[in-house]
Amino acid sequence: MTLHAPVVAGPDDYPTRRPGERWLKRKDPTVWGQWSPDAPLTHDQTRAFEQHGYLVLDDVFSPSEIASLQGESSRMRSGDAELDPNNIITEPGSKEVRTVFRLDQQNALFDRLARDERIAGRAGFLLNDDVYLHQSRLNYKPGFTGKEFYWHSDFETWHAEDGMPRMRAVSASVLLTDNDALNGALMLMPGSHKTFVSCAGATPDNNHATSLQKQEVGVPSQQTLSRMAEAFGIECAPGKAGTVILFDCNTLHGSNGNITPFPRSNAFFVYNAWSNRVGAPFAAKAPRPDFLSSRSPSCPIKVERGLLA
Amino acid sequence: MTLHAPVVAGPDDYPTRRPGERWLKRKDPTVWGQWSPDAPLTHDQTRAFEQHGYLVLDDVFSPSEIASLQGESSRMRSGDAELDPNNIITEPGSKEVRTVFRLDQQNALFDRLARDERIAGRAGFLLNDDVYLHQSRLNYKPGFTGKEFYWHSDFETWHAEDGMPRMRAVSASVLLTDNDALNGALMLMPGSHKTFVSCAGATPDNNHATSLQKQEVGVPSQQTLSRMAEAFGIECAPGKAGTVILFDCNTLHGSNGNITPFPRSNAFFVYNAWSNRVGAPFAAKAPRPDFLSSRSPSCPIKVERGLLA
Repeated sequence: MTLHAPVVAGPDDYPTRRPGERWLKRKDPTVWGQWSPDAPLTHDQTRAFEQHGYLVLDDVFSPSEIASLQGESSRMRSGDAELDPNNIITEPGSKEVRTVFRLDQQNALFDRLARDERIAGRAGFLLNDDVYLHQSRLNYKPGFTGKEFYWHSDFETWHAEDGMPRMRAVSASVLLTDNDALNGALMLMPGSHKTFVSCAGATPDNNHATSLQKQEVGVPSQQTLSRMAEAFGIECAPGKAGTVILFDCNTLHGSNGNITPFPRSNAFFVYNAWSNRVGAPFAAKAPRPDFLSSRSPSCPIKVERGLLA
Repeated sequence: MTLHAPVVAGPDDYPTRRPGERWLKRKDPTVWGQWSPDAPLTHDQTRAFEQHGYLVLDDVFSPSEIASLQGESSRMRSGDAELDPNNIITEPGSKEVRTVFRLDQQNALFDRLARDERIAGRAGFLLNDDVYLHQSRLNYKPGFTGKEFYWHSDFETWHAEDGMPRMRAVSASVLLTDNDALNGALMLMPGSHKTFVSCAGATPDNNHATSLQKQEVGVPSQQTLSRMAEAFGIECAPGKAGTVILFDCNTLHGSNGNITPFPRSNAFFVYNAWSNRVGAPFAAKAPRPDFLSSRSPSCPIKVERGLLA
């Protein structure tokens, strides 16, 4: 693959944060790559991703790899790792660490995970480009008190507030704990990625300061969510630790709270196509900070194999 | 069955709301009745209830019966039914009706449901006594914003705050909507009913005024819940509308919140043995109000069949 020139601003194919809500047809492919027998996903997997906007891959990482990642995860959440407080989000009403951002920069093992061929290579295939991390984070939903994440399309925010031009990004969630419907596993609306829900309402200044805990702007209306859920259904993506969930940047997703004693944790990497690097926000005065939206990556990720061995 | 004399107060077999948490062995049977071929549950069902502390019965009520009940339910929640505001609980932070108490007294159809042989008859068999309604309510967990119910044993509260002497009560939840793990179905810890968790902490005055929205006292510690969940596991009790879930008064249960568009609704009846009528609270200054704890039932329920036809 070659490095592409930065995107030139053109007409906005995905207007949002306007007075009224609208449904717009997606104007980008979901799978940018051309499948061939040496692709890192099977033909069926590729087609499923295209149709549903997500894919669950079991047993991608081995139990010993997961044990190492869990160890580093615990260390980071324990406070021993001297994390930048600006890169941490706590649970509403408590000091429990819910999210650690810039995961690849804060931890060497997770940096190697981000570059692992098993995820970064598949992202590169789906996007047919070199990739870089638009965002990376460790999510931890504690037992007993884990709060919900409401329904949203990531792309809506990345486009409006970060200036991501096109739907050419894919997220990879690496499960570090067993996830099931009872402890707040990811829920998705399969097929929703083919419609862009242009959301009503202007973006408040510094919206990210509150939207990370509870998103108020940039989410579809209840009426839209009901219609989408009726049309597409809601699928839960459970899996054992070591599972990887790949999902398109525009697939509607969310997760319920968790009163079980079993925590839910994952490492989350957003791979954006190098040719799709962010520019000025499409619907906000100023871009979100760098820990949410990598604004000046120096080069694409160097994808490697055997990094965790 | 014969009417038993009221319970004479004796030593408290289930002390709770003391300074420290303790685990005590259950001192009552789970199934009080003697199974015979004409019992309203099969031998396997009876044994499962005894072992797990709950039982899911599919297709107890027909689609047309459920449609009638749903119609009455909607009418009650719409505000057209002139319900006593004291008998209504709203969703925290909103005016959406979450619970309608004294369901049997507020609505003729639900009164007939409460006396239906298919639930009241089975409760009478399990308790081997005439039964009356200790509590009845319509639960409605709306889509998008439904909040969680934290883990608890009903009996702990009924004993401490209502003065229920023995574990001789059974709850019946009649599902009025399809319930699954994603929209906040009931979760139970099978086998937990054989241990009484004596909870730490004194009962505040008027505890029920806040505990119905968020219970703070009378719930097991996180350590206990973790140990119980490890030992017993957590089962979800999903089902289509028309399903009935019977569960013992001491089975630990709870439910997660619900961000899906699909509401969850059920009619909930607590059948107490006539011989187990409530007296003075075991761990509170004053009993909870009558809508939470029927304190002077005039006679047992007259169980009938064909009431909903």
